[in-house]
Amino acid sequence: MWWGSMAKLPNMLSLWNLLVLSLALNVSLILRMVSESQERYIGSSCFKKQGDGHVFHEGSLTISSSLSSNFANSSRANHPQGNGRVINLDHGDPTVYETFWRQMGDKTTITIPGWQSMSYFSDASNICWFLEPELAKELVRLHNVVGNAVTDGRHIVVGTGSSQLFLAALYALSPPDAAEPISVVSAAPYYSSYPSMTDYQKSGLYKWAGDADSFEKEGPYIELVTSPNNPDGYVRRSVVNRSQGLLVHDLAYYWPQYTPISSPADHELTLFTVSKSTGHAGMRIGWALVKDQEVAKKMTKFIELNTIGVSKDSQLRAAKVLRAVSDSCVQERRFQGEESFFKFSYNIMSQRWKQLRATVERSGMFSLPRFSPAFCTFFTQILEPQPAFVWLKCEGEIEDCESFLRRHKILTRSGRHFGVSPKYVRISMLDTDENFMQFLDRLSAIQIQS
Amino acid sequence: MWWGSMAKLPNMLSLWNLLVLSLALNVSLILRMVSESQERYIGSSCFKKQGDGHVFHEGSLTISSSLSSNFANSSRANHPQGNGRVINLDHGDPTVYETFWRQMGDKTTITIPGWQSMSYFSDASNICWFLEPELAKELVRLHNVVGNAVTDGRHIVVGTGSSQLFLAALYALSPPDAAEPISVVSAAPYYSSYPSMTDYQKSGLYKWAGDADSFEKEGPYIELVTSPNNPDGYVRRSVVNRSQGLLVHDLAYYWPQYTPISSPADHELTLFTVSKSTGHAGMRIGWALVKDQEVAKKMTKFIELNTIGVSKDSQLRAAKVLRAVSDSCVQERRFQGEESFFKFSYNIMSQRWKQLRATVERSGMFSLPRFSPAFCTFFTQILEPQPAFVWLKCEGEIEDCESFLRRHKILTRSGRHFGVSPKYVRISMLDTDENFMQFLDRLSAIQIQS
Repeated sequence: MWWGSMAKLPNMLSLWNLLVLSLALNVSLILRMVSESQERYIGSSCFKKQGDGHVFHEGSLTISSSLSSNFANSSRANHPQGNGRVINLDHGDPTVYETFWRQMGDKTTITIPGWQSMSYFSDASNICWFLEPELAKELVRLHNVVGNAVTDGRHIVVGTGSSQLFLAALYALSPPDAAEPISVVSAAPYYSSYPSMTDYQKSGLYKWAGDADSFEKEGPYIELVTSPNNPDGYVRRSVVNRSQGLLVHDLAYYWPQYTPISSPADHELTLFTVSKSTGHAGMRIGWALVKDQEVAKKMTKFIELNTIGVSKDSQLRAAKVLRAVSDSCVQERRFQGEESFFKFSYNIMSQRWKQLRATVERSGMFSLPRFSPAFCTFFTQILEPQPAFVWLKCEGEIEDCESFLRRHKILTRSGRHFGVSPKYVRISMLDTDENFMQFLDRLSAIQIQS
Repeated sequence: MWWGSMAKLPNMLSLWNLLVLSLALNVSLILRMVSESQERYIGSSCFKKQGDGHVFHEGSLTISSSLSSNFANSSRANHPQGNGRVINLDHGDPTVYETFWRQMGDKTTITIPGWQSMSYFSDASNICWFLEPELAKELVRLHNVVGNAVTDGRHIVVGTGSSQLFLAALYALSPPDAAEPISVVSAAPYYSSYPSMTDYQKSGLYKWAGDADSFEKEGPYIELVTSPNNPDGYVRRSVVNRSQGLLVHDLAYYWPQYTPISSPADHELTLFTVSKSTGHAGMRIGWALVKDQEVAKKMTKFIELNTIGVSKDSQLRAAKVLRAVSDSCVQERRFQGEESFFKFSYNIMSQRWKQLRATVERSGMFSLPRFSPAFCTFFTQILEPQPAFVWLKCEGEIEDCESFLRRHKILTRSGRHFGVSPKYVRISMLDTDENFMQFLDRLSAIQIQS
């Protein structure tokens, strides 16, 4: 209608005016879209990489130092002043993946209306009654697409990160009426939080018993097998291998960007987490694949008593993110040229490891683990592992590698926390590009100074 | 530049073409904006209310019955066949509030892009480094608007529901190196999950010691004060009152829809949760207001070791929902006629309690608690409490009230679980309208049958 009447406009001036008006409207609409997307950006910047001081003021606490955990000394003190600032690579905050998710645009944006997901319950017919069916579906699909775990005949238990599932597993596997707590062991170097997570409640059900390699005690025990291992990246199997052993496999890093996928993991109880697979640590979503129904029930019970379930919002968001990961893999196979999430992240890890190896070789002061290449069923190629952490050794006379690097304003975690020598440190490979490059510069500078 | 060259376009046809092109671009931009906002809405409808069968199959577990918790017997078996179906009012699933949040439309809809909130950290400068600053701000504002808690000089610790904060409080208040676990007590009838939550890990730090009214042991103890109380709705104070007592105040129900707000709570350590205040149980967000900095640090440490923080997605969503609650209160005061969240929920609770009292009085078989009216500073009126649970007593010869009601297909929780006589049961007042009305019909029918 208005279109028709417009065609009858008498003179060119009006038409010109209209064009200007219309172009102005275009510009304003485009600006509005840009500003909206920026607003979303700004609105979301609740995460402040601040931190002049420690995240957690350990000193004033009555917790023994053996109970200090991951985040205890985690200063986020990444001051902006170039060379002067501290590079914190103590923990594995997986911010490296943010670029990929930005590139995906709105594809993994989730919208939750205020009236949604109000109930405690997600699926009352499931043993894990607080598991969102949508998440369960995407977990099974992702494991099938990646080929890194058997899901047939498994119960899925969702947790507030895999930490909660680790505790749930200890609870579920411990004999409830034993005279003494069951021993919990893991081969050194083991994940630095295992001892404190196991012992902080002083549970009468389970107790940290140290390095699995030197474990001699008779009777039942729980062995934690992290593969690829945190901190050193090596593929692992259980080491104690006695009849009364119960195994928990922590496969947080068994994803194609970190290690060749050899075959679908097929264990009794396996833990995974989104923080290391997709980088969404802030969601706090982990999952366990559990063969034994009674164990799945007891793990569910633990989470019920601990937190009465797991955030539905994050479960729904995780489902959407995992769906995008699976979709990206399927599309990459179908249309050559598309880049899957794992290809993207594999390439970043590969580049970082190359740069790191070159820097370390030049220095002559440090050494790195060497990994054997192996066939990866996901990428259908022979590939080399490129772990999420560097397990760096200070060579020569440097006995305390963590203190040495701290003097050069690089925060790392000492081998001591992993049950081994302080000549080793663990360094995150998952931080931002900016921090990683600063870290390499700092390492090179050490060489020059020395 | 291109603007200048455009002005020199030779004939009107070109100008006309440009105008059409520009208008088409306008239309396309507008359509894109409309479709984007629709997509956000559609993408969110994942919420399913399922449930036939038991949530958790207690029988096959090796947990003693005294350790059975809340959700253990919680069948969501609300079969659709009218009178034949079981009405499950055993737990306090707060689905009654869904109507309000639907009425709010998009006001509390949250949109989270895939790349947002990826880090473990929310605010490294805060003791509680995983607390979203946006949530902290809204919590303080809400308490100021409602007048139910002092926030000045308090540290806020966020938790995965208030259950996790309850455990964090026990951990933080327990002497770390005591010869024996500290006693944890609460006056009967106490929240049925306190004993199992305290004891399920067999912690050497703390131990359930039962009814506070009969607690005689010398030395330090932790007393849990739930006010208004779950299950019976009465306002409470600590009862032991000895010098070595440490208090945890669980004020989950200290909101205007349940009880008159007498003054801002001003305790050492106070727990709240969104599940009972706004009805968003699926978010799993609770918070603690903590006076002592060292206690706040230890509680943060607990959550770090337990789940390495709390879902950011749910924290951001909770912030948005709480902001809407505060806004609704401010608007109600400013513009008479607008209905705040608390007015809405007060009215529902008021109506339900009236209907229930009428039904129970007609029956002559049951009795209900009687509450004294008190001045509510929020509504600035004298009002009567109308708790989130009914604490119903079977009169006469019915000794096991839970079994009696179960025969009439009403699932409730026996007084036994709350440390008192099985003549009592707890019944949720927060379920859907449909279930509540069915429940009243069922109660009336019992009277007729008897």
